[in-house]
Amino acid sequence: MTTSTANAALAAIRFGADGLVPAIAQQHDTGEVLMMAWMNRDAVRETLETGRVCYWSRSRRALWRKGETSGQVQRLIDLRIDCDGDTLLLQVDQTGVACHTGKRRCFFRRAGEDGLEDVPMGAADPGALYGKAGG
Amino acid sequence: MTTSTANAALAAIRFGADGLVPAIAQQHDTGEVLMMAWMNRDAVRETLETGRVCYWSRSRRALWRKGETSGQVQRLIDLRIDCDGDTLLLQVDQTGVACHTGKRRCFFRRAGEDGLEDVPMGAADPGALYGKAGG
Repeated sequence: MTTSTANAALAAIRFGADGLVPAIAQQHDTGEVLMMAWMNRDAVRETLETGRVCYWSRSRRALWRKGETSGQVQRLIDLRIDCDGDTLLLQVDQTGVACHTGKRRCFFRRAGEDGLEDVPMGAADPGALYGKAGG
Repeated sequence: MTTSTANAALAAIRFGADGLVPAIAQQHDTGEVLMMAWMNRDAVRETLETGRVCYWSRSRRALWRKGETSGQVQRLIDLRIDCDGDTLLLQVDQTGVACHTGKRRCFFRRAGEDGLEDVPMGAADPGALYGKAGG
């Protein structure tokens, strides 16, 4: 993708007062909602220019190149913008797992009659992926 | 669903400083990501107790019973909570359209080489290709 694509997207996005916009990552071919994270202008630009998804880490206050330490990268297939311009939907191709817990996706708990329950899905050992904090 | 379900969910959700949590609505059988909106504690409780999705409108500063005026209601199938407890994924059955523009879903624009483009509705619906959503 190109700088002009990034410029057009950035012109349409309404970032919040904190300079961030929520970004939902969806596996492009299965429809799984993998995770939700945040992007600032630099993250949007880098993602569109490189084709590798980059978020903004609110806890570390730094660009978060997804998979930089774990290898679990997200390749961008398509970046979509909602009607109000204040939420992004990323169609991605996720290598391995999206969640830092080692689960394929972050939404692995559901509200059940007897409290929270696990949503059945494949899981990997988080310790094998993450030696320390980070994405 | 019941009050105990709502209590368990509320205990696990980490609301932001503004008392809100982002909630992604996904059509349960096709995998379409329909919209993203916000919930406060009362909205989560009402949604789980009634089975009809209720958000918090940040602009109106009031509970927003989805479809109350338009008839385009969302029936809750499942409420999922992410690993950090700070984002919700609602599996819903959407009556009609989700977006106030009249589109089926809010993410109808994509970042293209020549600027923003419309996403062809139906054509870019990953869950439909596979018959069942994972997300």
